[in-house]
Parts: sequence; C-alpha cells; structure tokens
Amino acid sequence: MTFTLHGLPVSQGIAIGHVHLVSHALLEVNHYHVAPKHLQDELARLEDAVATVQGELVGLKAAASSGQSHTEVGAFVDLQLMMLADPMLIDSARSQIESRRCNAEWALVQQMEVLVEQFRQIEDPYLRERQADVVQVVERLVKVLLGHPGHLPPKRRDGFGTIVVAHDLSPADTIGFRDHNIAGFVTDVGGPTSHTAIVARSLSIPAVVGLHHIRDLVEDNELIIVDGTRGVAIVAPDDTIVEEYRLRRSELELERSKLNRLKDTKATTLDGEDVNLLTNIEGPKDVAQSKAVSADGVGLYRTEFLFLGRDTLPDEDEQYEAYRAVLKAMPTKPVTIRTFDVGADKALNGAHSRSEPNPALGLRAVRYSLAEPKMFLTQLRALLRASAHGKLQIMIPMLAHAHEIDQSLALIEKAKAELRAEKVKFNEQVPVGGMIEVPAAALSLGMFIRRLSFLSIGTNDLIQYTLAIDRSDEAVVHLYDPLHPAVLKLIGGTIQAGARFGLPVSVCGEMAGDPAYTQLFLGMGLRNFSMHPAHILEVKQQILRADVGELAPRVQRILRMDEQARVREAVERLGN
Amino acid sequence: MTFTLHGLPVSQGIAIGHVHLVSHALLEVNHYHVAPKHLQDELARLEDAVATVQGELVGLKAAASSGQSHTEVGAFVDLQLMMLADPMLIDSARSQIESRRCNAEWALVQQMEVLVEQFRQIEDPYLRERQADVVQVVERLVKVLLGHPGHLPPKRRDGFGTIVVAHDLSPADTIGFRDHNIAGFVTDVGGPTSHTAIVARSLSIPAVVGLHHIRDLVEDNELIIVDGTRGVAIVAPDDTIVEEYRLRRSELELERSKLNRLKDTKATTLDGEDVNLLTNIEGPKDVAQSKAVSADGVGLYRTEFLFLGRDTLPDEDEQYEAYRAVLKAMPTKPVTIRTFDVGADKALNGAHSRSEPNPALGLRAVRYSLAEPKMFLTQLRALLRASAHGKLQIMIPMLAHAHEIDQSLALIEKAKAELRAEKVKFNEQVPVGGMIEVPAAALSLGMFIRRLSFLSIGTNDLIQYTLAIDRSDEAVVHLYDPLHPAVLKLIGGTIQAGARFGLPVSVCGEMAGDPAYTQLFLGMGLRNFSMHPAHILEVKQQILRADVGELAPRVQRILRMDEQARVREAVERLGN
Repeated sequence: MTFTLHGLPVSQGIAIGHVHLVSHALLEVNHYHVAPKHLQDELARLEDAVATVQGELVGLKAAASSGQSHTEVGAFVDLQLMMLADPMLIDSARSQIESRRCNAEWALVQQMEVLVEQFRQIEDPYLRERQADVVQVVERLVKVLLGHPGHLPPKRRDGFGTIVVAHDLSPADTIGFRDHNIAGFVTDVGGPTSHTAIVARSLSIPAVVGLHHIRDLVEDNELIIVDGTRGVAIVAPDDTIVEEYRLRRSELELERSKLNRLKDTKATTLDGEDVNLLTNIEGPKDVAQSKAVSADGVGLYRTEFLFLGRDTLPDEDEQYEAYRAVLKAMPTKPVTIRTFDVGADKALNGAHSRSEPNPALGLRAVRYSLAEPKMFLTQLRALLRASAHGKLQIMIPMLAHAHEIDQSLALIEKAKAELRAEKVKFNEQVPVGGMIEVPAAALSLGMFIRRLSFLSIGTNDLIQYTLAIDRSDEAVVHLYDPLHPAVLKLIGGTIQAGARFGLPVSVCGEMAGDPAYTQLFLGMGLRNFSMHPAHILEVKQQILRADVGELAPRVQRILRMDEQARVREAVERLGN
Repeated sequence: MTFTLHGLPVSQGIAIGHVHLVSHALLEVNHYHVAPKHLQDELARLEDAVATVQGELVGLKAAASSGQSHTEVGAFVDLQLMMLADPMLIDSARSQIESRRCNAEWALVQQMEVLVEQFRQIEDPYLRERQADVVQVVERLVKVLLGHPGHLPPKRRDGFGTIVVAHDLSPADTIGFRDHNIAGFVTDVGGPTSHTAIVARSLSIPAVVGLHHIRDLVEDNELIIVDGTRGVAIVAPDDTIVEEYRLRRSELELERSKLNRLKDTKATTLDGEDVNLLTNIEGPKDVAQSKAVSADGVGLYRTEFLFLGRDTLPDEDEQYEAYRAVLKAMPTKPVTIRTFDVGADKALNGAHSRSEPNPALGLRAVRYSLAEPKMFLTQLRALLRASAHGKLQIMIPMLAHAHEIDQSLALIEKAKAELRAEKVKFNEQVPVGGMIEVPAAALSLGMFIRRLSFLSIGTNDLIQYTLAIDRSDEAVVHLYDPLHPAVLKLIGGTIQAGARFGLPVSVCGEMAGDPAYTQLFLGMGLRNFSMHPAHILEVKQQILRADVGELAPRVQRILRMDEQARVREAVERLGN
C-alpha cells in the first residue's frame, strides 16, 4: 500500500528507486572483559582499526578529489582524519581499555558518547551537527573491529536507482556510494545543516532527512520515491504515481542543463537592474567553487572554521595566510570577511569554555570577541595585513548595541596604529560593516548606519530571534517561518533604510540562496545576494526573469500585510 | 582603604553596618570510607540529620507566619521541606552510602551536584534558580552532620546594623536572621530572581547580589555600606561617605513612610487619567498581599507553580480549586490567569522531559501546551469552570503565530462544548488574551488584535529575544538594556495599536513595577500596569505626580530616537 512520509527537504530533485537499508553498526556493539594477558592484543586491535580507517579515508579523499568540485566532501574527510588523530577520542579509548579492561569497540562507543554530549552543548548549529563526525568515525572503527563488510549496495540494472535509507550518513559513506548508482538519500535524523544534507546538495542527489522512524517502516528493496523539493518520501507508489514522478524528474533534468548555460551571463533583471551574486565560503578551499560559478565576490567568509578541531588559537600569521589566500585568489573582487562568530561554549578545548543555559542568547560573536580583546586584536591585525592584497571588507557579527560598534572600531584603530608603527602595509580605508541579525539592530538602524560602511542581513539568526525559534530544535522547527510578516518587515526595512542612506546592504542568510525568495528580495530593493556557490545559478535564473519595476509595488503591498497565510500566498504568486 | 564593588541591585534601600561573614559549610566536607560494621550508624546519622533539619524548618515556618506578610518565605520553607522528603535527594544519598561506603555528608554533596546540574538545565529563570534550594537544604544537613553551630550574628549595640556577607543565602537563613538586627545582605552569586533577592525585597532589607568574590575581599566586622538602589557595596567607607549615606538613608525612610499613606488613594494622574494597578501572583497565597495594597485586580497569575516539586500533573479538580480560590477572594476584580508557561525541559520528573540546546528558543509555553493537547484541555476546562466564580480572563503566553491562537481558541471551544454537555456552569464570554513577548508578535499586531480580547506585554522575554540576551547569563547581563530604542519601539507600538483598535493592553514584565519607567509608560499611553504587590505604592506615587498631557509628546519624541545614550538621557529627564 502506498504511503507518504514527510520530512525536511534538504537537497532538491526527484529520485525513484529501491530501498537499500543501511543499518547502524553501533547498535551491534557488546561489552566484554579483557583478561590482563590479552590487554596488549586489545590495544593492538584498536591501533590496527585506526590505521585501516585512516587508509580508507585517505583513499576516499583521493576518490573525491578526482571527481568534480567535491571540495566540501574532501574537507569532511579531513575532519574525520583529524578526529582519528585527536587524543580525546583514541587516547581516551586506549586508557579506558587499560583501566577498565574492556574491549576496544566498547571503549570507543563510551568515549564517543562523552564527545557527542560535549558537541550537543554547542550553540552554533553548524558546529553542533559536527557531532555526527564523531559518531561516524567511531562507526567506521567499529565496523573494522567487528569485521563488518561495509555497506555497498549492489549495482542495479533495471533502470531504477538505489535509494539509501539510513539513520544518518557520513560524508565518507556518501563518497563510497558514488559508483553504485545511488539515486537518493533518506534518513531518520538530520537537519538542513547535517552532513547528509550538505553532501547530497554538493553531489546533486535528492535527499529528505528528519523522517524519524522510516527505517522501521520500509522493507529492503521496496520501491520508493524521494521528492527532495517537497520533502516527502513515497513508499510503495503505484504505477500512476511512478509515471507522474518520472515526468517531473525529466522536467527537472532539463531545467538543470539549462541552468549550467547561465554561468557567464550577467545577473541583470529584465528592466536592466544589475545584481551582485556573492558567495558564502569557509576558507581558501572554497574559492574554486566561487570562481566556477563566476561569483561577483565573497559576501561572507566565515572565519570560525579556523577554530575547529584544534586546541590552540590560530595565531596572527596563520590567520593572515588564510585571509590573504582568498584575497589573492580573487584580487579584483570584494571579499567580506566576518570576524569570529564563536561562542563562549565552543572556545577551544575547555580552557575558556563555559556552559550557558541558552548559548544562542549568550556570550557569542562580537560579544565574545569584545570579552577577549587580545584574541580580537590578533584577528583584526591579521585582517588589516591581508587588506593589502585585495578588496577586503571587515564584517562584525551579531551587533545589537552602539557601544559594540564603537568598541570594535576603536580596536580596529588600535590595530591600525600598531601596524603603522611597525611599518606594515594595509588598506587605511578598509570598509567595516556589520551583520543585522538581532531584531534590536533591525529596529534601530540609524545607530548602525551612522557608524558602519555596509550592512549584511543574516536571515538565519534574525528569524531565530524574531520568532524565538531554534531551528536546530526538532520540536519547534515547524514554527520556523521565513515568511512571517514580522521577519519580512525587518528585512524589508533594513534594505530600504540602506537605500535611503546610500549604504550597501546584502543578505547572506540561507534565504538569499533560495530561488523561492529571489523575486521578493528584488522587489524589496536588494541588489546584493550572498549564498552557497551551489545556489548561484538558480538564483541568477530568477533574476534574469524578473522585472523589478513590476515587482516593487507588489512587494510593498506584501510588506504591509500582517496575516501569515496571506503573505505566503502573495509571495508564491510573485514567481508567476 | 575605601573601595567600591558593583553588583546587581535586587532590594532597594541603604544599609550601613559591620560585615558578618557567613561561610559555606559545603566547603568543609571531606570524604572518608565507612567500615562495613559502621554502615548502619552512618545511615542513622543521615536520618537524624534529616529529622533535625525538618524540625528546624518547621520552627522557622512558624516564626515566619507570626511575622507580617512573609507568605513568600513560608512557601520557600515548604519547598525545602518537600525536598527533604524527595527520594531523589535523601534516598539516593542513602544508597550511595550503602554502595560506596562513604560518609553521609559526602553522599549528600554528590547527590546535590547531580540535582543542581539538572536544575541548571532548566530554561525558566525562576525555576532554574531553585537549584539554590537544593544547595541550601544540603547545606543545612551538612551543618547538622558536622555539628556546625549555625550562623547567628550577635546583636550589636553601637547603632550600626549587621551586614550579612555570604556566598548565597537561603530564605530559611534570612528568617533565622530576623531577630538579629540585620541591616543588609550582600552575596557573591544570585540574580534578581534569586532567593536572597526575593526574600530581601519582601522583608524590605537592602541587598546587592552577584558581587563575585566579595567574601574574599572583606574582613569580618569591617564597616560596609550596602546601596541596594544603585547595586554597590562600599567597603571601609571613611566618615564623610558614612555621613552622606546616613543622610540618604533618612531621606529614603521618610519616603517610605509617605508611600504607605497612598494605600487607599486612587491611581489618577494630575490631569485626571485613571490607571489600573494590577498584581503578578503565583497562587492563592499571594492574594492577601494584593489586597493589602488595594490592587485593582490580578494582571498575571502564573500557573506553572502548580508543577513545582511534584511528579504528577495537577488534575482538573486541583487546578480548578487553585484558580477558584483566587477568583473567590477577589470576586469583583479582574483576575487574568496565564496558561502554563512551562517548557519541555522542565516537564515533570523526566517522563516528558527532554533537553534542548536553547530552551528559551524551544518547546515552551503555548508551544508546549499545543504539543500536549490533553494537558492543555485539562487546564482550559479547569479555567472555564473557575470562570463561574469571578471575573476571569484567560491569557496565552509566548504567541508568535496566528495558528497558535486559532488552535488555542479551538481548544477553548472544545472545552466549552464538553462543559455544556456536562451541564457545568462557566462564563460563556470569558475574555481570551495573549502575551506579546516574542518580537514577531509585537511586529505583526494585526494578527493578534483580530483574534484576541486583550494583550499583555511581557517585557522580560520581549527584551530577551529582541536583544538576543539571556539575562540570567552573567556573561551578557550587562547587555540587557530595557531602554534600547528597539525595545521601546516594540512596547510603544503595541500600546498604541491597542489604543487604536480599542483593545486593552497591559504591561506585566518587571519594567511595569520599576518606578523609573512609570512616566515613560504613561506617556506611551499605558493605563494597565501589572507588577509584584511590593511595587504598587511606589508606582502609584509616580502616577499621582504625572501629567499625561505633558508626557505624551515628550515620549513620542523618545520613541523616534535611535541612539541608546540619548534615549537613556531623555527617559531620565522625564521624571524631573
């Protein structure tokens, strides 16, 4: 009997195929005592497993880099390699084996749970979901320890693809699946920022996550349709449904091949308005992808990835190199680097870390930077030094108060004075801007406009605070509504205030990369969109079809509406 | 040498006196092994200590009830008695003694730490601070176990009072201190909702909390001034400073005696505008205090205290009794009862509980009630039944979406239909209102005004979300600014929208009870203030001095300002 399950759509497209159930190796771990005389053997078992997994990962990385633009995947494999080298995992497992005389797989799973709990406490949704890496590294090790054959589905020859149904997937798994005609992914857990989601998008494989107990509801080999656009999985569809979805799938494929032809087209609306399409990146490794889609620059370079997986602060020279590498790779285009958006909760291996009841409302981003002025000054010096090599802009996250800007600008002046005294070159005129992502900022724009050179709206946090919804919290994610009239008022008001005072405004949250909102933003007056490189072409397509003169008055009417249902309807009609 | 320490002002007034250092019994606990033959003795030691502390608490409660209006203190003692009976504490300590063969005080402190950690995870700041009760109960037990003499400062005869300087104080301590000429409290930890704060206010003793390491910085018997209005402690003041503070203290005392004469004066401005002064209460026990200050009704009856310290849901009859008791006590005055403002994180002894990364942005208040419709329906039935006995209004917390109101109203209709079918009396016209405490609501008021009969602005949460600041988080509390222009815009806009559409609007957050903001609110058009009964007279005094015709245009100008410093200055000038 056909039935439909609803989850979160995280990678667009339609896949039709047979279920391949992937079980969870960790569920099969038993505990046993190791006799003293076998202790050395058990430790050797652990070492062997680590070496084997290291080999596997290095092999996967090579396989990934031979493909097209899987830079993200490569980075995730690096992350897992780093974890294998992290004393918190392997050394601790080793001491558990020694002190508790338990088997290696048990020790690993115990230590994994400790680490997962630590990750769970992290506020930033991107970093928090990195707990999946810990689980996946341990799962790889356990598979090796148990002599598990691994989960490679057989190649099929009947024209249908294979749909992998799992509790959760690691990026390494998804690379391993690459040569096996995998058509789609469906998982019990995960959100829009989970690995499954990010990797599925970068491989252009449809995926639906957060389907809860789908593994218990489907059988191996059963026919299933994955609609990664609507976020549904249709189990045991009848022939009519299959036929309908085949048709929709061909339409989508046609669409995609058209998109690729837009790479070198300028993003100009029908009535001649030029739009800048910028990318969000996480380090020098992402520049290639930005260039591949001919981006107009970098709208958001997240620097907090410099912190990840290490136990010392990145020093000034190391930061300088990471910033300069991007500027040198795009010397004629603006590169906006955001200062650290880390929180007290994730600051480096415990030394500075503390737990907060609500980290999202706590000491993070500019608040944390101002509380650690030495760290902040080091970053500002590195940024200023890098400014000599291209069109750098400095962006400060999470501003809510005038004095936060004043203090940040004073520190920048201090860094400049130091560099001048040291006769180090930098751009004296480097623009300093701020993120509008706290409702207070969007409601008192004058305070920000008077002090800054540009604004960038971070829609993810702005929506989170405006609605008081943590979208990484499954219990309330259904209440996360980017089209809430309050949200649109704040975004529209910020874009219009920028235009009135001649201050450039961009949007760099996820909404900017969603083609469903492109016409809305254009109608609000937005001319700078910043997004993951993967979304640039789709958004460009919307821009090429848009007529701003016609959109603007319609969007003005939407901004005056205050019923959620009417706003949603009106925004949907904009695209037609 | 004179020096000044800054903390949080939690109970107004000035105290001058000598330091009485209260040390922390828990710091003195050592671990030792109990030989098997002494295990029964150790368990008996624990039982004896429990019995002794029970006796002490019962005695303190009797002492409290003989005083004037110490209902709050009595409730806290009850809470501690309940904890002594809670198996999570004593039974667990007992099993620890048995299984680990450790001493009773050690077992208690271990178990305390487990419980404190559980409390620490709770989102609601009121409930979270109840972790202090656990600590204080254990501290009482440990004192008894260690044969500690208790901390009663000697009565002084030199005209100066005694200032108690402690890490933290229990309400029981503060009652114990009552007959010892205690002039003020100063503590290392605590916030505006800590016990020390609440009890100090109810006893009208000046208190400053959150002074961090003050215990290490002062000597026993040293002279100290506590300024509970500005939040400072001045250690070793010279004679000029003492003289100045003596003068200010006499002025304040005069002020207070004038205030008490306003009890039966109607709250009307100089230009004849009538204002309603309502109280925030937490159960039938608080009605007496509301009546004592001739309140115009109850603006916020928090029902979540029905949940506290129990492991079953309060059933319909029990809730009905708790609601009816207040309505019967104030039959002619409006009583606004707020439906449960609990979160998934604090729902009843684990059964429903789950942990969330940011509970303040998670499943709480109406979101939780709608996720547990059976629980919600039970409460709505109890409320409707109580509506037959007075002027009940139902208020729904934390609304952000239209469908949350629609679903709540549908459940109220369902409850009404059931009661009609059962021929149970209720008020068919009971008004249903909502709290405006999420920025999204304050920014899309039409959606709320069209569906509800009244609005109440919860400034605490509204400020928290607008500024993205958890004010119970010490690391960022300095950024919590009720006068941020964004906050004032949202509050002012809500009051004005209510006036325009003829919908009553009240303010029930802490700002409503702060006389520094009374003129500001009056100028915004507010005519319904709801606050702790202790603040009614001070606010009334401000109202009696105010001229709304003169204030309104000045406040309109303030609402158009967007520099924090200017707003603060202008609000300060309003009072003059």
